[in-house]
Amino acid sequence: MDTLFMEQAIELAKLGRGNTYTNPLVGAVIMKDDAILATGFHQRYGEKHAEKIAIDQCEAPEDLIDSTMYVTLEPCNHTGKQPPCTQMIIDSGISKVVIAQLDPNPVVAGKGKAYLEAQGIQVISGILQEKAEALNKHYNYFHRRQKPYIVLKQAVSLDGKISVHPKQRTYLTGEEAYKRVHEERQYFQAILIGSGTILADNPKLLPDIITDFPPVRLILDRKGITLDFEKFQIYREAVPIWVFTKNDSIKNTPDHVRLIADDDWTIAKVVDYLQKEGIQSVYVEGGSEIHDAFLSENMFEEVITYISPKLIGGNGVPAFSSKRGVLSAIPLTLQSVEAVGEDIRIVSRRGKKDVYRIDSGNRDSQTNPKSESAY
Amino acid sequence: MDTLFMEQAIELAKLGRGNTYTNPLVGAVIMKDDAILATGFHQRYGEKHAEKIAIDQCEAPEDLIDSTMYVTLEPCNHTGKQPPCTQMIIDSGISKVVIAQLDPNPVVAGKGKAYLEAQGIQVISGILQEKAEALNKHYNYFHRRQKPYIVLKQAVSLDGKISVHPKQRTYLTGEEAYKRVHEERQYFQAILIGSGTILADNPKLLPDIITDFPPVRLILDRKGITLDFEKFQIYREAVPIWVFTKNDSIKNTPDHVRLIADDDWTIAKVVDYLQKEGIQSVYVEGGSEIHDAFLSENMFEEVITYISPKLIGGNGVPAFSSKRGVLSAIPLTLQSVEAVGEDIRIVSRRGKKDVYRIDSGNRDSQTNPKSESAY
Repeated sequence: MDTLFMEQAIELAKLGRGNTYTNPLVGAVIMKDDAILATGFHQRYGEKHAEKIAIDQCEAPEDLIDSTMYVTLEPCNHTGKQPPCTQMIIDSGISKVVIAQLDPNPVVAGKGKAYLEAQGIQVISGILQEKAEALNKHYNYFHRRQKPYIVLKQAVSLDGKISVHPKQRTYLTGEEAYKRVHEERQYFQAILIGSGTILADNPKLLPDIITDFPPVRLILDRKGITLDFEKFQIYREAVPIWVFTKNDSIKNTPDHVRLIADDDWTIAKVVDYLQKEGIQSVYVEGGSEIHDAFLSENMFEEVITYISPKLIGGNGVPAFSSKRGVLSAIPLTLQSVEAVGEDIRIVSRRGKKDVYRIDSGNRDSQTNPKSESAY
Repeated sequence: MDTLFMEQAIELAKLGRGNTYTNPLVGAVIMKDDAILATGFHQRYGEKHAEKIAIDQCEAPEDLIDSTMYVTLEPCNHTGKQPPCTQMIIDSGISKVVIAQLDPNPVVAGKGKAYLEAQGIQVISGILQEKAEALNKHYNYFHRRQKPYIVLKQAVSLDGKISVHPKQRTYLTGEEAYKRVHEERQYFQAILIGSGTILADNPKLLPDIITDFPPVRLILDRKGITLDFEKFQIYREAVPIWVFTKNDSIKNTPDHVRLIADDDWTIAKVVDYLQKEGIQSVYVEGGSEIHDAFLSENMFEEVITYISPKLIGGNGVPAFSSKRGVLSAIPLTLQSVEAVGEDIRIVSRRGKKDVYRIDSGNRDSQTNPKSESAY
């Protein structure tokens, strides 16, 4: 039965997708005598947590006495934008809490569970853990590894070219893949491209649906050659843009554009900046030199490849390319292969399957020394 | 019922795979009063045809009177290495012949069917035609289009590279893909590579099983730089090799090596030579300049891509590459996508689906003016 109710809590959690921003998706179900008393999910960043919503939903608060709460993530024990959920649970009379996943965020990290137990609440954790962790893949990764989850996304021909010419956009993938990419963007906290892609494609780089927390658009533009706020479409919509450049002397920078100056940006420095800013996930759309820079600096976790059944050949622009010489073939692990319209979508993750297995098996984040080293 | 017996004839035909050489695979079943009287399939080039084997199998020849023969391909009406099957059928007393596919080979092309009908045999054709045609994809294509069926086969990383360095072999795909390629080779009448691949990989380029009719190994080597019969493995096994070169002054050429000289080989000239030699199918293994030459001369029908989930990046060798400039993205149509061990195998054909549909819909080859223009 535990599994069944947790399954429902997970489904509830999903309803918050796209609106919880840096907060994780969380769902909760309160049960008593095999009947559902109340449900809740975290709906928006800064607003009530799932546990609070469920508790508040009960019209007769005395019903909560000796009830059981199923919650997808460990209840918090600290005061942030909301008061701690643990105290609220204790005060409500709930006598048992079933948790899918302990919270890897060091400000919670097992403390919520410990506090509940100390107050005499029965706590069970680990129910449907893997499924619940999948709700917040980026959040978990960010707090466990202290770095954003970086996805390199490319669209290539069958012969691995991204366009016929460096300065010309080639429409490779079909409509369905196009839609899929736009949908994918909204699951990331940042989207990154290089200046070359702006010059060649002049993209808007927005997801289809602009939520209250759209992804920050990141531009790697050392020389500042794309800092023409009239000319390039990307600057038009008043959605945050951060430009990594050495040129911060530009005037009339619109309010939504942040120029971040350094004389010698590297991918490592950019990623470090993003981590400090709390960016949990980055969708790197290229172009091919940017992708190669992330590869050479070993700064990525996943690669999403859209393959269009076309051939370009000749001196067409190869994916992941640069003048870099001494090379090896870096092995990834296939996660999925699917048809998307007339194209193929391949997801692969770095390393061998086991590597990630070991990581996701390390479940109690409070025992993970890395998670202690704070964020 | 027709379908059921034809299905069986098709299964029989498959048993000849790899041994009929330029002859098509053919299977035959003789039925009378819902019982199987005899079966046959073409087993080896130069030996008895399927129809003859089935007829000979009947111990009491009088049983054949008023029986029905199911045969996957139109019986021949000419004397080649074997006497014509049509006369044998008529003489046997068989009164009805059910044919899956008419023979596109102009020496038969409807003449077998016409002769049987003229002699009062009832003939039905087109039963399971598509399935029967698939038995002899290359044979049908060769006779309908008067050119070999050319498959460009590549093995690439996720970023479309074939190796880390032009002069160094990179092992990209896994064991299962390796086996699959070796199996695939034996379904072609020729395998083609460029001199660069010999210098970098020193391959044997043999299928796993060497039948009596192994594929001819074709080497494009204008300058003759690989004509060192001791040094390169490819020359060791006494299996035919044809080298397209301008250098035919080499001495001590082994018996199994044929040097074909021309001062200015192009892909079109090579293909023309192969067509005249009756080579129905070619498996082009690269390298990437050779593939690009076939692409730029528009000389291919199918592309088989093995993708290994690895990244190379930098200045790794891109698939299908050359200095050729003015480019476009040539659309292909996906035929299949499958996992082969840890790799992905993608088959695509040229043009839009409809194009091939029209072609395979053009079933009665005697009404196809192209097939008349002889081979």
